[in-house]
Amino acid sequence: MAQQSKNAAIIIIGNEILSGKVQDANSPYLSGELRALGVDVQRISVIPDEIDTIGEEIAACRKKYHLVFTSGGVGPTHDDVTMEGIARGVGKPLTHHPILDQLLRTVYGGDLNPAQLKLADVPEGLELLHAEGLRVPVLRFENIYIFPGIPSLLVRKFEAIKERFRETPFHLRKIFLTGDEALVAEDLNKVLRLFPRLLLGSYPILHHPEYKVILTLESKDKAYLERATQSLLLFLPKELVLRLE
Amino acid sequence: MAQQSKNAAIIIIGNEILSGKVQDANSPYLSGELRALGVDVQRISVIPDEIDTIGEEIAACRKKYHLVFTSGGVGPTHDDVTMEGIARGVGKPLTHHPILDQLLRTVYGGDLNPAQLKLADVPEGLELLHAEGLRVPVLRFENIYIFPGIPSLLVRKFEAIKERFRETPFHLRKIFLTGDEALVAEDLNKVLRLFPRLLLGSYPILHHPEYKVILTLESKDKAYLERATQSLLLFLPKELVLRLE
Repeated sequence: MAQQSKNAAIIIIGNEILSGKVQDANSPYLSGELRALGVDVQRISVIPDEIDTIGEEIAACRKKYHLVFTSGGVGPTHDDVTMEGIARGVGKPLTHHPILDQLLRTVYGGDLNPAQLKLADVPEGLELLHAEGLRVPVLRFENIYIFPGIPSLLVRKFEAIKERFRETPFHLRKIFLTGDEALVAEDLNKVLRLFPRLLLGSYPILHHPEYKVILTLESKDKAYLERATQSLLLFLPKELVLRLE
Repeated sequence: MAQQSKNAAIIIIGNEILSGKVQDANSPYLSGELRALGVDVQRISVIPDEIDTIGEEIAACRKKYHLVFTSGGVGPTHDDVTMEGIARGVGKPLTHHPILDQLLRTVYGGDLNPAQLKLADVPEGLELLHAEGLRVPVLRFENIYIFPGIPSLLVRKFEAIKERFRETPFHLRKIFLTGDEALVAEDLNKVLRLFPRLLLGSYPILHHPEYKVILTLESKDKAYLERATQSLLLFLPKELVLRLE
């Protein structure tokens, strides 16, 4: 049974997030959506609007992960440098994209000023992913999917193309415990020795009236997950197990 | 006038964030608090509970940034590997810390089981930062401040020591515009040529009844910020400026 998933990195570009002015809604959205699609998000990076920093992050992530998603920095002003950063990271020049230029003329309804023209300057080799319901396509360079920072636009674009990312899903079980996680640490080690491919998390919850810990058990192999769950339930002290979900 | 600030990186450690099960509250809290203290957060990384990955992130960030804050992975179970990751990243062995051992005996009220004993295994050279109101001190290794992942505990610990991070504050002005940012992009470039040290952001806002863009102007030098703001107001088309805050 293949456990191997596609993995992904999410790169959030924007000084406004780092300075605490705006709370990032895009990485929680993307990580939840990608997980539901069966994709394993391995990194989220929030970085400033700086060409060099974006270039370095892109260069590192495009080789290390199957999929890379960027958000932010694609508008017309001085602080929108994502395209230049990606171009640097992939070692390509920026070129004016004629189809994107045409699309922008339709959107803006006429001639483009220099700031609007800049929106069609993209790394050489960039592709346009057209999809139903999108006036402006999603921009892709190889395994890098480039999204705007405005959450409602990102959601609309991601929704339009997300089926292409679907993998075998993760299956999840949760066990709720009424005692401290230090009391079950050795039981968790035991089940991991028997089921080394189990994805097992232990999360203390403060001040909940019913439980103190949530254990999460995950696998892409449902039968393996069920065997591991039953095995763990045998190891855990019965009086600590509140319920299984 | 010194523009130079202390900068910082925030490293959030936890599979539960990457898989979208839990929304990270710690990086928004820390980035807002650090900004208010005058610290310039330059990176937020969310990474999995993996010793190697944590080690690499720590090794890169401790040299590149003045301050590094970690959150998560400091509990007693198999997935709590932050201490091993930091030890790897700073090139020190893990050692059992006798004072931390004593503190844990007080907290747990007696003997420690193997999982609890592990909580006192820390990188050699780690310091304890005691502060008023803290039962368990903040753990520090050189410029790395190690926080628990549970938001209420992180807040309590950060509050107790935050004054040590205070710098010259950032001053902020906002200009609200009623037109598209492409219309003012050249005005923003102009003010940046005159005030190259100005921190200037331009953020489109969709579907707001009153404005379409918020410009943010920042500096640690209040007089410089005021001059830059007045200069920008002269460049901007008057009919687009809704208000200044």
